[in-house]
Amino acid sequence: MIAFESFLPMVEAALPSYLQQNEPYARVIDEAMAYSLLSGGKRLRPCFCLYGAAFAGASAQEAMPFACALEMIHAYSLIHDDLPCMDNDDLRRGKPTNHRVYGEAMALLAGDGLLSRAFEVMAQAVCACEQTQARARAAQAMAYIAGKCGACGMIAGQVADMADLNALDPTVDRGALLAYIERNKTSALICAALVSGLILGGADASVIRDFEAYGLAFGMVFQITDDLLDELGDEKTFGKPIHSDAKNGKLTAVTLYGVEGARAQARKWLALAHEALADYPQADALIRLIDALPQRVF
Amino acid sequence: MIAFESFLPMVEAALPSYLQQNEPYARVIDEAMAYSLLSGGKRLRPCFCLYGAAFAGASAQEAMPFACALEMIHAYSLIHDDLPCMDNDDLRRGKPTNHRVYGEAMALLAGDGLLSRAFEVMAQAVCACEQTQARARAAQAMAYIAGKCGACGMIAGQVADMADLNALDPTVDRGALLAYIERNKTSALICAALVSGLILGGADASVIRDFEAYGLAFGMVFQITDDLLDELGDEKTFGKPIHSDAKNGKLTAVTLYGVEGARAQARKWLALAHEALADYPQADALIRLIDALPQRVF
Repeated sequence: MIAFESFLPMVEAALPSYLQQNEPYARVIDEAMAYSLLSGGKRLRPCFCLYGAAFAGASAQEAMPFACALEMIHAYSLIHDDLPCMDNDDLRRGKPTNHRVYGEAMALLAGDGLLSRAFEVMAQAVCACEQTQARARAAQAMAYIAGKCGACGMIAGQVADMADLNALDPTVDRGALLAYIERNKTSALICAALVSGLILGGADASVIRDFEAYGLAFGMVFQITDDLLDELGDEKTFGKPIHSDAKNGKLTAVTLYGVEGARAQARKWLALAHEALADYPQADALIRLIDALPQRVF
Repeated sequence: MIAFESFLPMVEAALPSYLQQNEPYARVIDEAMAYSLLSGGKRLRPCFCLYGAAFAGASAQEAMPFACALEMIHAYSLIHDDLPCMDNDDLRRGKPTNHRVYGEAMALLAGDGLLSRAFEVMAQAVCACEQTQARARAAQAMAYIAGKCGACGMIAGQVADMADLNALDPTVDRGALLAYIERNKTSALICAALVSGLILGGADASVIRDFEAYGLAFGMVFQITDDLLDELGDEKTFGKPIHSDAKNGKLTAVTLYGVEGARAQARKWLALAHEALADYPQADALIRLIDALPQRVF
């Protein structure tokens, strides 16, 4: 049994070591990058990567550059998402967003810097592999991650999410559009994390397919839970709903299916996750993890 | 003798093949990425990469993914540089800038998409190598490029370039700051191009050092020429000076050293480029290329 929780302190310890220091002329960007990367959070993506690696037999040491690169990619996406031209958010995890502290230009560059550094760290990890097979696997893991975070992955989800619903062709299937957004915006990077770890450990294609199905479901339940929390509020954390996406006409599971319909969607994806991992009783930590997600909204 | 000019049509033919197509929900970003990537330009960076590869004995086919990735990185940097929070430019190569056509949010994502795709294309090229040595070299080339375009390379130059000169500590050496900006903002990606090609061909460390010195000088002369063109105007192309950087207090070779001083700086770097390649008479195309740069401003 691999305990998912054991990876968090390892990730927290390793993350700062992947940041670099510039000469004084440009040192402010080091600070801006660290501000967003080292601001806590659940570190889900790096933990998924380390879990996948452990599951398939790769060491945490081998997988750590990829795990931390995934967190850098996540951090970059949040910085850019928060910018005034995107969601224009002032707060992220209870702290002022990057551009509120460092200004828009520096936040833009800090995001660019984190994305670039993520790939530098992975490319260096590929170079550092001494064995032919390990190097091939590391390169495959990097390519898989690049595809999932790019313009046909995570970014495609953000693009589709920006579509003006009022201007949308009425024949467009809203349910298919929403699934496309969730699959790319949220699930893609979760899959990238889990599967890159599996690739590093040399997992079979059939195992990768099953864990991809789980990763897709995880992202879906994660996003639907988030939408439900926005609608219902979270008494423990937020007191009252912060905002209702319904009000600004945004397409979410709640605005499309209603609260009960969204819960049914989450249940459907939970069942698919259980089904995907049915042959892997040793992956019970992943089942517990996804089952816990919607507890506050069911 | 390797003719530099012969690479341009090869690059123009290959570039579109590295772009992908999304589902309709997100297809607008494909268009936004293509708009900036396929808008002409001298394709200097990909040609430098193919030149370095040919010089060291790698084929254009091997080097093409890296060459095109470098142009994607260049295109992303221009899109983000043009954004309202950065230089707020309306025109680029005589066409409306990306955000003037597609809006700020899409331009931001198109830049992110091009950077991500650049790394995906390189990572796939690493995976596609069949021989152990070729794969190791490809991974090294990718790591080198990632370092040069990242927060301790090109981005550091952009950060330093944003410093408010009026608020700058008076003890800061302006000449050293300007050299830092030029070295990172312009030379870094030129070096990345030339050296990644050399790495793919398995060039010796001493050759790489000499061509790095040339790449540094090329970027310097390129930037100083640009600054002089802004100041003097270019009768053939622009008629009159478009703007004088001196007016908005920007640190350039011209504002710091004056027109004659800037010309002297360019001459100094030209001499260093000649010195760097003195042992490589077969690289005469590179010497002709750098010598031609400042012709309009001398």
